[in-house]
Amino acid sequence: MNQMLRQDAETIARAAIDAVKPDTAVKEALGDFAPAGRLYLFAVGKAAWQMARAALELPGIRPEVGIVLTKYGHVGRPLENVQCLEAGHPVPDGNSYEGTQAILDMSANLQETDTVLFLLSGGGSALFEQPRIAPGRMEQLTKLLLASGADITEINTIRKRLSLVKGGQFAAWCAPARVYTVVLSDILGDPLDMIAGGPTVPDASTARQAAAIAEKYKLPLTAEERQLLRAELPKALPNAEAHIIGSVRQLCGAAITACAALGYEPMLLTDRLACEAREAGRFLGAIARSHAADGKKLAFLAGGETVVHLRGSGLGGRNQELALAAAEELAGIPNAAMLSVGSDGTDGPTDAAGGYADGDTCGELEGLGIDYEAYLNNNDAYHALQAVDNLIITGPTGTNVNDLSLVLIDTTT
Amino acid sequence: MNQMLRQDAETIARAAIDAVKPDTAVKEALGDFAPAGRLYLFAVGKAAWQMARAALELPGIRPEVGIVLTKYGHVGRPLENVQCLEAGHPVPDGNSYEGTQAILDMSANLQETDTVLFLLSGGGSALFEQPRIAPGRMEQLTKLLLASGADITEINTIRKRLSLVKGGQFAAWCAPARVYTVVLSDILGDPLDMIAGGPTVPDASTARQAAAIAEKYKLPLTAEERQLLRAELPKALPNAEAHIIGSVRQLCGAAITACAALGYEPMLLTDRLACEAREAGRFLGAIARSHAADGKKLAFLAGGETVVHLRGSGLGGRNQELALAAAEELAGIPNAAMLSVGSDGTDGPTDAAGGYADGDTCGELEGLGIDYEAYLNNNDAYHALQAVDNLIITGPTGTNVNDLSLVLIDTTT
Repeated sequence: MNQMLRQDAETIARAAIDAVKPDTAVKEALGDFAPAGRLYLFAVGKAAWQMARAALELPGIRPEVGIVLTKYGHVGRPLENVQCLEAGHPVPDGNSYEGTQAILDMSANLQETDTVLFLLSGGGSALFEQPRIAPGRMEQLTKLLLASGADITEINTIRKRLSLVKGGQFAAWCAPARVYTVVLSDILGDPLDMIAGGPTVPDASTARQAAAIAEKYKLPLTAEERQLLRAELPKALPNAEAHIIGSVRQLCGAAITACAALGYEPMLLTDRLACEAREAGRFLGAIARSHAADGKKLAFLAGGETVVHLRGSGLGGRNQELALAAAEELAGIPNAAMLSVGSDGTDGPTDAAGGYADGDTCGELEGLGIDYEAYLNNNDAYHALQAVDNLIITGPTGTNVNDLSLVLIDTTT
Repeated sequence: MNQMLRQDAETIARAAIDAVKPDTAVKEALGDFAPAGRLYLFAVGKAAWQMARAALELPGIRPEVGIVLTKYGHVGRPLENVQCLEAGHPVPDGNSYEGTQAILDMSANLQETDTVLFLLSGGGSALFEQPRIAPGRMEQLTKLLLASGADITEINTIRKRLSLVKGGQFAAWCAPARVYTVVLSDILGDPLDMIAGGPTVPDASTARQAAAIAEKYKLPLTAEERQLLRAELPKALPNAEAHIIGSVRQLCGAAITACAALGYEPMLLTDRLACEAREAGRFLGAIARSHAADGKKLAFLAGGETVVHLRGSGLGGRNQELALAAAEELAGIPNAAMLSVGSDGTDGPTDAAGGYADGDTCGELEGLGIDYEAYLNNNDAYHALQAVDNLIITGPTGTNVNDLSLVLIDTTT
């Protein structure tokens, strides 16, 4: 392993993630927020507790009551006046629906002088949910869509119509109270109505699009479900406003600054990467290979969220697959490396945030008798990278603004 | 369609392909070549006749004698002072060995004041061969190695030691005459000693490696063959020099020059692209999308050869799939376009060289009721692109140095 590049890559990734952590960003977004009447604070998502804590540290934010609804293990110390609930993620469970119902109950019958502060982060889609159909059926349809290769926009267009809270319905429920939403973004290009299904923003999708998606993936719907897909959701919400913080663009921007600080010439390729993870790894590896003799310190950056089509039965995540696929292209190049990491610190169903590879990785794997192509084909990047100490482990970061993939090349020496 | 970007993209692609056509490239490589003594011209490979004809059109090139050794049906009109022979390819036959022997005979006993011009192109490995063992035995050992899973480097390391001409042996044979080699490359990354077994370049492998490979695959060798593997091949050839022309690097270089001439800031991403075609298109489309508001004239270039895994039954090629996949990412962007083209003018089993897409393409396809995703999934990019006049048709170009993919963005106006 090239220890210097590994260290640089981790330094850059850490700096980028630090810059989009909720605390700083929440406080900045709420600097001028001083509601006059009664304040209700609701926070949902993986960063809910952290966002709520940051908000409560501001002098103007003194909620009557409130609820934090987050993933198991994501609640820290108790918060004043705010109840902290935990529930299932990425698969919702009974506690998700009960927690969501508790928020709905608490926000029933609000007045025009009331204000709802709604803090939304990644994972909100699973955590903040109250289906209009049986929860098991909702999960089943989501799985069918995922297995068919539907993207998150398509899945959300269907799901929000089968939900009581999504697609602006929660803000409509809170009316006539004012609803002020702060969103920690985790969706490419920041389409507000898609983040966590957009509970407090007008819906930009249409019933017609929902029908087309159901048709495209041959979704086996009941008559009742078909009827639900036909409903148009709120197209305007005069009582609501929303602000985005911590976007993938900000993640990339911070990475660029960190690259430059270490002497790399940074080049942002894209902040909307959305292709197949392993092919993105091969593309980025090919970029590294072509620039491996430039005699420069170069950094190529791509932000976004790639996809994995599961074929095997191994353990991994999109960032680990991307890194392992890049390893083959990097093989034998002495001064090029690749790191890919999920900003939330969790890549797939693993304890790793992502993976690292450089010119030595393939040789090290071969030395251990590990056929990286077989591991890749079995979607088992985790165990291959683990064997050569190439997993990136950060633990939960408290933020979630997509992934950062980074190619570093240093041929100045 | 954005006519201006379409025209620019075609201009750039045409300039790049023109630059790597054998005629142009050979003439440019031999511009300063003016040997003083007797000149011998030998050309082997599929483009041998074409390369020899181009060389003979230069005033300084007047060989005493020479031989063109090419594939059946690849000889055009007779050439002055140069004998044209045809032989078997990809499987060598008696005419390959006889043709090679004729070249060896003609180049025996050369003087220090003599010069050999050696023009090498794809297919040279089969066409230019004279085994030190029975030809049938050479084929048998090659098949055994292939069946054992040996890679091309390993096979060549064995084969060149069983050959009279490969691994620098032809240049050694011509010594003390000067040997000037021009190679028309069709291998990604251009390892000179691998192209056609490197008859005129120093050998990069060792006898020790050859023995290890024979051992690794338990190759059943005779005592004589073992003896041959023990020989070290030329590690230095002071009488020889070689120049690569028509590589994918040159294709990209010419495209960069053409981009700059049209006012675009060019950025070469890679000249070794080798991932899945449609994912490369999505990656390149995401790059375009992220830079669509930079207020600059930008060009991103990628050379190489992507792959298509056929799932459908439609008509298309890797460049057409790449362009159609990019169309979705480009949708709605007014000033970004993508062109992908095979330098040989033939993309897949079609009459098109590649495809074009811009921000209007998806809308135009939708207007015609064409579901581009369905066409893409059916590997039917040809018919989708044809419907909106987005096929790139060049006809056969007479060269083959991989593909060029090009993203153009003009947001200066």
